Amino acid sequence: MITAAIAGASGYAGAEIARLLLAHPEVEIGALTASGNAGVRMGDLAPHLQPLADRVLEPTSAETLAGHDVVFLALPHGHSAAIAQQLPEDVTVLDCGADFRLDDEQDWTDYYDTPFAGTWPYGLPELVRAGGGKHRDDLVGARRIAVPGCYPTAVSLALAPGLAAGVIEPTDVVVVAASGTSGAGRSSKPHLIGAEVMGAMSPYGVGGGHRHTPEIRRNLALAAGADATVSFTPTLAPMPRGILATTTARAVPGVDAATVRAAWESAYADEPFVHLLPEGQWPHTGSVVGSNLVHVQVVLDERSGRVVAIAAEDNLTKGTAGAAVQSMNLALGLPETTGLPMTGVAP
Amino acid sequence: MITAAIAGASGYAGAEIARLLLAHPEVEIGALTASGNAGVRMGDLAPHLQPLADRVLEPTSAETLAGHDVVFLALPHGHSAAIAQQLPEDVTVLDCGADFRLDDEQDWTDYYDTPFAGTWPYGLPELVRAGGGKHRDDLVGARRIAVPGCYPTAVSLALAPGLAAGVIEPTDVVVVAASGTSGAGRSSKPHLIGAEVMGAMSPYGVGGGHRHTPEIRRNLALAAGADATVSFTPTLAPMPRGILATTTARAVPGVDAATVRAAWESAYADEPFVHLLPEGQWPHTGSVVGSNLVHVQVVLDERSGRVVAIAAEDNLTKGTAGAAVQSMNLALGLPETTGLPMTGVAP
Amino acid sequence: MITAAIAGASGYAGAEIARLLLAHPEVEIGALTASGNAGVRMGDLAPHLQPLADRVLEPTSAETLAGHDVVFLALPHGHSAAIAQQLPEDVTVLDCGADFRLDDEQDWTDYYDTPFAGTWPYGLPELVRAGGGKHRDDLVGARRIAVPGCYPTAVSLALAPGLAAGVIEPTDVVVVAASGTSGAGRSSKPHLIGAEVMGAMSPYGVGGGHRHTPEIRRNLALAAGADATVSFTPTLAPMPRGILATTTARAVPGVDAATVRAAWESAYADEPFVHLLPEGQWPHTGSVVGSNLVHVQVVLDERSGRVVAIAAEDNLTKGTAGAAVQSMNLALGLPETTGLPMTGVAP
Amino acid sequence: MITAAIAGASGYAGAEIARLLLAHPEVEIGALTASGNAGVRMGDLAPHLQPLADRVLEPTSAETLAGHDVVFLALPHGHSAAIAQQLPEDVTVLDCGADFRLDDEQDWTDYYDTPFAGTWPYGLPELVRAGGGKHRDDLVGARRIAVPGCYPTAVSLALAPGLAAGVIEPTDVVVVAASGTSGAGRSSKPHLIGAEVMGAMSPYGVGGGHRHTPEIRRNLALAAGADATVSFTPTLAPMPRGILATTTARAVPGVDAATVRAAWESAYADEPFVHLLPEGQWPHTGSVVGSNLVHVQVVLDERSGRVVAIAAEDNLTKGTAGAAVQSMNLALGLPETTGLPMTGVAP
Repeated sequence: MITAAIAGASGYAGAEIARLLLAHPEVEIGALTASGNAGVRMGDLAPHLQPLADRVLEPTSAETLAGHDVVFLALPHGHSAAIAQQLPEDVTVLDCGADFRLDDEQDWTDYYDTPFAGTWPYGLPELVRAGGGKHRDDLVGARRIAVPGCYPTAVSLALAPGLAAGVIEPTDVVVVAASGTSGAGRSSKPHLIGAEVMGAMSPYGVGGGHRHTPEIRRNLALAAGADATVSFTPTLAPMPRGILATTTARAVPGVDAATVRAAWESAYADEPFVHLLPEGQWPHTGSVVGSNLVHVQVVLDERSGRVVAIAAEDNLTKGTAGAAVQSMNLALGLPETTGLPMTGVAP
Repeated sequence: MITAAIAGASGYAGAEIARLLLAHPEVEIGALTASGNAGVRMGDLAPHLQPLADRVLEPTSAETLAGHDVVFLALPHGHSAAIAQQLPEDVTVLDCGADFRLDDEQDWTDYYDTPFAGTWPYGLPELVRAGGGKHRDDLVGARRIAVPGCYPTAVSLALAPGLAAGVIEPTDVVVVAASGTSGAGRSSKPHLIGAEVMGAMSPYGVGGGHRHTPEIRRNLALAAGADATVSFTPTLAPMPRGILATTTARAVPGVDAATVRAAWESAYADEPFVHLLPEGQWPHTGSVVGSNLVHVQVVLDERSGRVVAIAAEDNLTKGTAGAAVQSMNLALGLPETTGLPMTGVAP
Repeated sequence: MITAAIAGASGYAGAEIARLLLAHPEVEIGALTASGNAGVRMGDLAPHLQPLADRVLEPTSAETLAGHDVVFLALPHGHSAAIAQQLPEDVTVLDCGADFRLDDEQDWTDYYDTPFAGTWPYGLPELVRAGGGKHRDDLVGARRIAVPGCYPTAVSLALAPGLAAGVIEPTDVVVVAASGTSGAGRSSKPHLIGAEVMGAMSPYGVGGGHRHTPEIRRNLALAAGADATVSFTPTLAPMPRGILATTTARAVPGVDAATVRAAWESAYADEPFVHLLPEGQWPHTGSVVGSNLVHVQVVLDERSGRVVAIAAEDNLTKGTAGAAVQSMNLALGLPETTGLPMTGVAP
Repeated sequence: MITAAIAGASGYAGAEIARLLLAHPEVEIGALTASGNAGVRMGDLAPHLQPLADRVLEPTSAETLAGHDVVFLALPHGHSAAIAQQLPEDVTVLDCGADFRLDDEQDWTDYYDTPFAGTWPYGLPELVRAGGGKHRDDLVGARRIAVPGCYPTAVSLALAPGLAAGVIEPTDVVVVAASGTSGAGRSSKPHLIGAEVMGAMSPYGVGGGHRHTPEIRRNLALAAGADATVSFTPTLAPMPRGILATTTARAVPGVDAATVRAAWESAYADEPFVHLLPEGQWPHTGSVVGSNLVHVQVVLDERSGRVVAIAAEDNLTKGTAGAAVQSMNLALGLPETTGLPMTGVAP
């Protein structure tokens, strides 16, 4: 059995990794660590993880994380680099934070206030790249993997096929995405309490201020093989989980609807987790909750000259923990789908 | 006292008109009519309207609507024209359906399957027009008014100031809007039942298919004084009421943030219902639920070259019934804000 | 004009008082005070109260509250007594906290950890008492009024008619109530964040631990003219506002359904805010949201020998702020319904 | 591999059975049948079941259900008997409807309008009985099993330990339960549309009218070994899934808290799916969503003389489909937990 530790197991991302690993036939869960919640019973913080109820959280440190084959880091942004340096090189480390996602130091310093830590292979296997190939190629055998952000996963999977195929333009991309409030983490900020979020929608980070913006731009540029510009507006929706990313890009002049659809079809025909829905059926976040699935649909709007591509995912599963486990599977040479939920919990 | 009848009082729009008129000091509610629900107690269909609980719905016809100073039509699209023709010219008629909103017959036939019925003054008083003036000018003394669609209200109020001021371009506008499910009406379609909509987001009418698209395009063109193109994607959000419209348009080259803000400030400085929020504060649909308010914010995103303007409204109040009552006030020479709620019900 | 100050205006109860007073034709809002939020713009904390957006919160003190005809205290439990002592006797003071609700010192010390402060007239005008009369009688001309708790309002109004009429027994009453999460206040506790409360129900204070238990028991005893015992279980429901109180009591042997219904009918026939629904129609919290209404229904279950009475209210309106304004109206000799919303905001 | 057919696969119960069987290592899904939806792609009706997306629903008939080892019936009440008669005796049939749950013909005719069809072994393995033993004993090797109703499962598991141990009385039991709206099925009734149910609670079937009442009463009587009376009030909560059952019964005089707790501890100490939470921790429906778990807590309220026991379950999983699969496992001699989710999907 592969042994795995989870750093930050009391947060939403860490607990979701635990949920997935409990169903993984090849992995045994080792240390569960936390900072403020060290010493607390897991059952008090995550009663939905019944088999772990009597486990007690240990403090997060190189010592408590030592001796495992795999370490998942589900820590606040900026905390992963210090811990990662202390872990042996042959341990497979998957960082769910942003620390190693960006490859442009300027992008990092524009959006984060900790030093640039470097770049790890990017754990979004299905993401196509200009000139052929997908990010999957970088993950086999990797020992350090940066798990993508939740918004960049949905947005990039929605748009990349058209960019790589040259049917949409990488400049002037516009994205509006709605996320369940678990995406904001488990912190008890005033604007996140139930009475504020239920029954209401609100935007945040408008005007390019959200930290996922440069990650999205980078992914689109890699898919297009050219610079990209993106207007990205995230919104908070009254639901616990799920992201609906509505993305649009200008159609390359002369492209027709069949060519557009063919680009997405060929990109995802063989993907186990990313599904282009039949024509006329649109993604519904409720259908992918709890699963590692992404539902995608695309249409050419001839009047506006834009292609609209929409993706739905569970922000905690495929958007975070599922991508981490999927990347681990690839890194360790396991079948990519091992232990990952192929069905949503609906309604 | 002014007497008012409501045709379609058992639907969400009609019942909301009744809610507002109950608080209107100059209006007395006369006939309440319905089609399938004729004969039913209002208290069985709208128990929140306690003072009307024992009123019984009459059938919708020219006879039952006769003898009132004002008639509100809250009927399915395509049903207003036939009734309106039978009402005397001196009766003030406000149509909450789409029948008389569009002024381009081709637009109508592209999106509706009933004959084009004509165009009435458009009941969005705050909407600015190229060359100065607002739609308010057309409403004073009008006897026939087309109440705007819920999405066009939010979208047009978000963007029009920048278009009229020439700081954003009317071509390649992109809009993604989230609506509470009351916007889909009171019909019991399978995809609207609670278990399907709670906890989930989904798009519909993607690719320019939503009937509000030509109405939005027309409004933007009137504000810009030039043709407009718009990519409009509506989404269904898990909340009963509220619309959050996220709109973006390309900034005119060279425009700076102060100029952008000034355009919106001058458009809405004196408006009682439309408020540009202080810089840094973004609209939250929960803050305007139950009110006739629209909260607006705007920002220039220099990296993407786009202005993002966001508006929040209650789709049933300012988005439908409030606009109808506000337009009635103007038509009859009453103070524009008479009887209209200036506060939301939050949290 | 009557001038009114609100202490604790940044909390949910205080802001709701402000919402109601903005629509009150006889009252002008004076000082708005807070403790931690002193100095903050009201528009930042309560953007739904557009007309107060530019008002700045003052610190809560006898000085800032001085010079008003009426003072509303919406403070944490245990904080009202100290402030109230410093206010002149001829000022009308309405305390939305628990400090002056109980008349039994032992009950107070069993549930609270501050000293017993005394008892004020109880602001639930419609509550019937054994031997005839309602609490309304105590409120006319009162200068100190204890506003009831949100649960006791719904529970007591549901059961009191049957107790006063002698058709149900005051011992072995069982109550289970569901409340929207605004009832827990605006504090950002971990179990109240949106992702935890949406899509889920949970109980709290089970086994008689909730502080509203002795207040409920006292009210039922006053209605019955005899000791009462009650099992009270509150639960948290995934909605911002509303309380649904399901109450049951043993039917007095031999009582029939008509006698049961007659007791409730006679108690509420002339009440403007408390409505016994027509037979067969059950309360729905959505119908009373934003209003000062209580919807009640009752039925005799012959198989179990119990009467089931159910009440729905808005916990912030009739459950707190509406009761305060209604009591103020009575205290000052204004018509009882002045300025209070008679319609809910639905759907 | 065991082959299984699902009759009624387009409803919520049937689709949930399909979800569970997709993860069951010993079962292969055969025919999926429906009545009105026959001929429709499964992906159009249940897009969350990605692996079944291209399966087409067949009409429900003895022919389409023939040739499988196991048949799950998820049909409207009253439709199972006719189909069941046509299935061979050696086929394992699990009926999720009510047709074979009751053993008292009078109970059946009091609540249903089809003829009494008989009684099958009751698929609630963990339910204790007076004099020892659990219902599990009846299920091993059974070929016909009546799957319990969703409310009776939660209510019976909450109360049975105390009744069997003689620490609570079976007369004058009071139950108030809140259910997610999927419990009302997938039909599009006006009161179930999203705008009506979101943000609101409402009761139904009050006064003993709900069809689950006699099933609850029977279960409690079997646990107590004596007649039971119960006041049962179900309520509709604004969530897709989950039941929170708040149950109370009079404590037998002289019983203390430790004795109460011991009764529940001994009943569930070895149960894989039913968990008595640590003292002080109360069930939260969100923690069991998607799982076959039941979380239970109990407390003695000495002031009211009642024991309060609360259970949380997922109405579609343990409340319906999970119980069906668990019963199938027992019937076929498989380990009882095979293929059943031991963790909830939270938050």
